[in-house]
Parts: sequence; C-alpha cells; structure tokens
Amino acid sequence: MKVILFGASGTVGSFVEKALKENQHEVIGVSRHSAEFRADMQDLDSVRALYKKIGKFDAVACASGEVTFDSIEKVSTEQWENSFKSKVMGQINLVRAGLDLINDRGSFTLISGILADEVIQAGTVASTMNSAVEGFVRSVAAELPRGIRINCISPSVLTEAKSYHSAFPGFIPVDGKEVGQAYLRAISNPMTGRVLKLH
Amino acid sequence: MKVILFGASGTVGSFVEKALKENQHEVIGVSRHSAEFRADMQDLDSVRALYKKIGKFDAVACASGEVTFDSIEKVSTEQWENSFKSKVMGQINLVRAGLDLINDRGSFTLISGILADEVIQAGTVASTMNSAVEGFVRSVAAELPRGIRINCISPSVLTEAKSYHSAFPGFIPVDGKEVGQAYLRAISNPMTGRVLKLH
Repeated sequence: MKVILFGASGTVGSFVEKALKENQHEVIGVSRHSAEFRADMQDLDSVRALYKKIGKFDAVACASGEVTFDSIEKVSTEQWENSFKSKVMGQINLVRAGLDLINDRGSFTLISGILADEVIQAGTVASTMNSAVEGFVRSVAAELPRGIRINCISPSVLTEAKSYHSAFPGFIPVDGKEVGQAYLRAISNPMTGRVLKLH
Repeated sequence: MKVILFGASGTVGSFVEKALKENQHEVIGVSRHSAEFRADMQDLDSVRALYKKIGKFDAVACASGEVTFDSIEKVSTEQWENSFKSKVMGQINLVRAGLDLINDRGSFTLISGILADEVIQAGTVASTMNSAVEGFVRSVAAELPRGIRINCISPSVLTEAKSYHSAFPGFIPVDGKEVGQAYLRAISNPMTGRVLKLH
C-alpha cells in the first residue's frame, strides 16, 4: 500500500514509518519542514495540494498534533484555539481533503492519546482535544463513502520520549514499536470507527 | 443557592430554570439578547464582566451551544471553527472566567449531548464537540480549587423539541423535566467530573 504519513519526523512517526516499511508498504513522509513533501495540516488547501501532487494513495496516517500543557488558570484563549487547530482541526482536514482522492477501501488513521481517558497535571487541554478526535473518528466512520475506513491510535506516553516521563508519574510507558504495530494493524485490517488504546 | 443559567431562553434552559426555582434556588437567566443579564460566551471578558456585575454566586449552569449539522463533505472550515467556539470554547470560558469568582464549593454544570456516544446522519460535528466537552469536564474536575465541582449533562433529543425528532429516528426522546432534574442533581449533590447521561 501507498501510505502518506504526517508527522513522519517525530518520535511516533518514526516508529510508524519503520513498521510500515518492514511490511513492504510504501511510505511518503510529510512534515512541515520536509524538502519534498510538506503541508500545513491547519490549511485544507495545503493538504489538498499535497495529495494531488502525490496522486493515488491507499492510506493516510497521522502522528502529528500539538496541544498546550498548563493549568486551567494559565492556558490562554489563543493556546486553547491553537491546540484545537493543531490536534483536532488539522487531523480532520486530512480526512476532508482526502475524501475524494483516497482509493476505494482506503483508510485514515489518526492519533489521540491516553489523556482522553486519564488525568495528569496540566493535561486538561490534551484531554479535551484527544476526546474531540475520538468523537470525530467514532462518528465519521459510519459516514465515509466507498468503503473508506477511519481509526484512531491512543498511545500512553512513549518509552522513548523520556523527557515526558516526569509528567506521567505512575503511568506505564508504551514502546514505540507497539505504537507502530497499532498503526499497521489499523491500516491493514477491516476495522473502522475504532480507538486502539495502548494503555 | 444563587445559580447563573446561560441559555435560559432555550428549551433545555427553561426546564432547568423551572427545576431550580421549584427547589427554592435563585436563578439569574443569561442570554445573548436578555435586557438585564447578557454575555457573549465566546468572549472571556464579556463573561467575566457579567460575573462581576452579578457578584457572589454558587453555581453556573449552561444550556447553550450550537453546532453545525451537515455531512463531512459539506461542513466548511468556518462551520467547524464556529461550532468549536460555541459549544466547546464558550462553555470552557464560563469556567475560566468564574474560577476566582465562584463561591467555595460552587459548581459548574455544562452540556454535551447523546451524539458524544451515538451516531446520526449529519451528526459528526456534534459528536466531535460533545466529546470535547466531556473530555474537558472529566479532566478539569480534578484540578479545580476550593472544592469547586464540575459536571456535564448529556441529554438525548428532547420530547419537547419536536422539530429535531426526524433527525433522531429510533431514538427515545427524554422529557425536558428529566433534564431539568439532572441539572438540579449535579448542582445539589457532591459529585464532580461526572457525565450524567439521559439516554
């Protein structure tokens, strides 16, 4: 399969790329700063232009999206809105832009995160946005045409993302390899509307 | 208790007001067009100015927030963003603006809706935004200071909102009176971080 991977240069993205390539899939890595394939997920036209440049594809996988971590007293309106645009609207745009370009029976695989279910200090924005992504995936799955599927990966903090571990005391990290396998699973099997929880 | 009710003029709001008044609570109804108490929930400063005008209060209840109903192919970027601002950011603003003004052990009661869990035609934006509201409530509950509580009411389509019934085929409507009781329950009892599902 030909898979377009957003956030390819990040920690999660690198494991997704590895899992897909080990299984003989073609991966087109996209990042904001990539020389060849770049797109601004927050700009629908930018994503659409990228898809058209790439041509036919079978799957879109996303390992990108940033949210603010701070207490409810401190998060600004701008930070709330930017978190929505990055983690939620950006990922929704990947679907909107690709609806009529992705191959029949193609799939989208988005990312939420453990904070949709769990609470940490300063995690309220993440909880809000991860929950929005999961709500989107559960609902839009039933609406997609031409056998197109959509699923969501919800990882715990990654073993390899050591700088985040202190923010997740008592949480069991998940190995990046397992997260990569979850993307491969969502892309390769006939599931839709699922949230695969790695926690 | 002194309760500030946003969306007092709507169908849900009118039942909330009735339930609270029948139980000897003081209700200050707020709407965008009310003569005495008005505020734009999407504007943090506007909500804060209203709270300061009112003075001390024990609870905030919200029965307001609009989202676009349409297919994924048709919802525009502006409609996505406006739905977020109205249903999610507006309600979050009620909390942000009131954090240091609400009385000790006061409460916030927000509204999500059955589409956080269920799927209808054209309901994807509602599913996304309702899920975000519930994620926010679950997470921020553990963070609020001074014994302040927060909960969320998730109603099915209302019996009295007959114009919506055709959009919810096979769904059992909930009586407005029950929804009003759920708000009373959330405001009056020592619960926090709960989503009360009326479906």
